[in-house]
Amino acid sequence: MIETPYLLFLGDAPDQLAAKVARGIRDWRPENCVGQFRMEGCKADVGLRDMSLSEAKAAGAKTVVVGVANRGGVISQAWKRVLVEALEEGFDLASGLHNLLRDEEDLAAVAKATGRKLHDVRVPSVKYPIANGEKRSGKRCLAVGTDCSVGKMYTSLAMDRDMKDRGLKSSFRATGQTGILVTGEGVPLDAVIADFMAGSVEWLTPDNDDDHWDHIEGQGSLFHVSYSGVTMALIHGGQPDALILSHEPTRPHMRGLPGYQLPSLEALRDTALPLARIANPACQVVGISVNTSGYGEDEALSYLEATEKRMGLPTCDPFRQGAHKLVDALLAL
Amino acid sequence: MIETPYLLFLGDAPDQLAAKVARGIRDWRPENCVGQFRMEGCKADVGLRDMSLSEAKAAGAKTVVVGVANRGGVISQAWKRVLVEALEEGFDLASGLHNLLRDEEDLAAVAKATGRKLHDVRVPSVKYPIANGEKRSGKRCLAVGTDCSVGKMYTSLAMDRDMKDRGLKSSFRATGQTGILVTGEGVPLDAVIADFMAGSVEWLTPDNDDDHWDHIEGQGSLFHVSYSGVTMALIHGGQPDALILSHEPTRPHMRGLPGYQLPSLEALRDTALPLARIANPACQVVGISVNTSGYGEDEALSYLEATEKRMGLPTCDPFRQGAHKLVDALLAL
Repeated sequence: MIETPYLLFLGDAPDQLAAKVARGIRDWRPENCVGQFRMEGCKADVGLRDMSLSEAKAAGAKTVVVGVANRGGVISQAWKRVLVEALEEGFDLASGLHNLLRDEEDLAAVAKATGRKLHDVRVPSVKYPIANGEKRSGKRCLAVGTDCSVGKMYTSLAMDRDMKDRGLKSSFRATGQTGILVTGEGVPLDAVIADFMAGSVEWLTPDNDDDHWDHIEGQGSLFHVSYSGVTMALIHGGQPDALILSHEPTRPHMRGLPGYQLPSLEALRDTALPLARIANPACQVVGISVNTSGYGEDEALSYLEATEKRMGLPTCDPFRQGAHKLVDALLAL
Repeated sequence: MIETPYLLFLGDAPDQLAAKVARGIRDWRPENCVGQFRMEGCKADVGLRDMSLSEAKAAGAKTVVVGVANRGGVISQAWKRVLVEALEEGFDLASGLHNLLRDEEDLAAVAKATGRKLHDVRVPSVKYPIANGEKRSGKRCLAVGTDCSVGKMYTSLAMDRDMKDRGLKSSFRATGQTGILVTGEGVPLDAVIADFMAGSVEWLTPDNDDDHWDHIEGQGSLFHVSYSGVTMALIHGGQPDALILSHEPTRPHMRGLPGYQLPSLEALRDTALPLARIANPACQVVGISVNTSGYGEDEALSYLEATEKRMGLPTCDPFRQGAHKLVDALLAL
């Protein structure tokens, strides 16, 4: 188990999206965060108090969490200076990067010398099975996106929170580093060996009560050529009963792929639903979640209204408005 | 490099399909095979002379190749007795199983003591990049199947051979253990970490001459819930210009999934082509390859003719008839 509370390390994040891990922890477990640590040139800010290591120590922080995701997951030398100092000051470190803390010789040596722990939450700790495709009891909901990083995890966390607030049976099933750092457990899907991806999702969402819903954290997008295989494994391993379409309307192109335009919500629906029905013929698209963080209130509301009308599906921004509309749609299935 | 020639180890294969690795090497590199080794109860036969270890040694074999693929890739104790004896008699071992030879303590110890080599061709030896989706020069052809193990690799190998026979520029790009054992190089795609799958396919099929064709070995099926994510990564990482639809018409259900029916060729076309066009808008379905090994000659020919007429696409069994019809279709693009 990772000791709380956390100091969130934002490093030299080039933009807000790069710090989405930190942002997720701040939004969903604020009680676990004492502050943020930003290096010179950091362009991200998750709205916590800026703290030095010693200030965070004095405030009770136990673990420095690397809350910034770099493309390819490289731990830079500039970060190392801070992370080594953190170990020496008595913090544990936690990270969801591909490039493991434990594989960095300097960090491993200092952690050993100081008796501190290195938590690499991205490393699968389970030998996952190959998917068998057998129908499982209980219900499952999966958010699929027009792109990566459009709010799929937030949608699932908000739906889970809304169902729990109503006293309904619900679990958030984490499949990425942020989700795992938020909930303390899950499958680090993008680090799973290809053949076992769908099986790891089956493992994560086992048989359950007939009226229990798993909210499976989505990953990537069927339309994002770098990660579409991971999305496919979620759709077939998760055998969802319900899909939520997730979108961010101000994105100029697919994240990290300047040559690729985002698909329409119609194209996403028409692509994802037939694929989902291979594993679960009863699957339905039940609603749309839009990340309207790029819009002001009026613009957001009119976009949501127009989208709901155009698509004929309940549409909301679950972070701005709560997820009750989407949960109502699930319960009406 | 793996020393040739090989003795092909079929173990206690429960059926012919389980020995498809051995069969592939026998069919495409017969000059590298001195014989086959079968244990009691073995239900597979690749048509080579049955040999004991000492007979194979006398015939010049240098490496015992594990030519049998088990679900999940387990190296059983019954196999171990033979493999240990092989090392002791001076053979190297090569395998494409998930369960690595090097991770079996007894095999590793005997290999060390005897100075023999253990080749695990399934282990990626390269740090693959994340896919960037950028358009590459040269042409690429990918076979996609209605199911796993329907003849995608054979189709690509046959098309590569036909193009080379015509003096055209062509490469077979191996993505599985059999292909790698056949060609000596490639990407063991089903053992690649999820986030790097599409990138490994880009790496495998780099920029090339405008008139050069890569024939990319297919894996899994978009309709096979255990492995569809791997297929998706091939479609987006490979950015194929041409798709071949591959089918085996006598299969009662999806391989290993009794509850799942095979899709029609129409459903495969309508699912795969729009997904391929995300990465390459110019992609076309150019032909159909049918594995007619379950049919006699007349039945095979009439099935092929009826399918060609129904689908309006050049259709053949590349193993029975050669791949010239499919290559003609490629060249007409």
